[in-house]
Amino acid sequence: MDCRNVLLEVAGDVEKALQILKERSLIKVQKKAGRSATQGTIEAYIHAGSRIGAMVEVNCETDFVARTDEFKELAHNLAMQIAAIYPQFVSREEVPEGTDIEEPEKACLLLQSYIKDPDKTIQDIINETIAKVGENIKVGRFARFELEN
Amino acid sequence: MDCRNVLLEVAGDVEKALQILKERSLIKVQKKAGRSATQGTIEAYIHAGSRIGAMVEVNCETDFVARTDEFKELAHNLAMQIAAIYPQFVSREEVPEGTDIEEPEKACLLLQSYIKDPDKTIQDIINETIAKVGENIKVGRFARFELEN
Repeated sequence: MDCRNVLLEVAGDVEKALQILKERSLIKVQKKAGRSATQGTIEAYIHAGSRIGAMVEVNCETDFVARTDEFKELAHNLAMQIAAIYPQFVSREEVPEGTDIEEPEKACLLLQSYIKDPDKTIQDIINETIAKVGENIKVGRFARFELEN
Repeated sequence: MDCRNVLLEVAGDVEKALQILKERSLIKVQKKAGRSATQGTIEAYIHAGSRIGAMVEVNCETDFVARTDEFKELAHNLAMQIAAIYPQFVSREEVPEGTDIEEPEKACLLLQSYIKDPDKTIQDIINETIAKVGENIKVGRFARFELEN
């Protein structure tokens, strides 16, 4: 077995290991998804020039987690995302029956590509914070105001 | 004529003069009320503890006035007022036909007593800023979020 084959084999093992870790993490996140999230924070972001503003309610399970830097950072990033890429709904489930949406991944916050890291969706960065803080996290609601002129 | 009478007369004249000034100022404010207000600012206020947040759009006629300290201060005070005393509507005119409101001066922002100076209504402090900056000012819309638990 030459050096190249060994490297390929190792690379394959690493990939498998990462996949297993990812799946385990996802299972943990999914287990938390059913838990009620009634604590949390209200966060606002006013864009430079004060012509666009966003406010968001982000929920978690305990006041303790609501006060952590990880959770606050997520809330801040969500407010920025809402100000930048105007979503119409939180999730696909929230879209009223019969509403005609051409691009759900633009209209729904959770499906949107994250402005600071376009390879991830908003649900991805929420899942990352769920994995970090060990509690279910949900976006409760949001508002976005923009001056028309 | 004794000293007391002179003082009473002077006081009466001062009162009349103030009344005339107040009426003139009100006429000026009323003249501006018809003018369109399409510029302005989006302001948010998050109450200590991050469990209550308010966001407000305040409109004026020019971007120049929108950048003044007087206008920004008004927007900030309005956001605080909305966070503190939850209004349901901007004005009485906005209340939908058939809606049962027991106390319009609690439900309508413009009719509310100002938290920092309860002798004034919110419309009063808006009028004061109109008189200062010389432009019509309107509250466009607001949102208020509060954690339920």
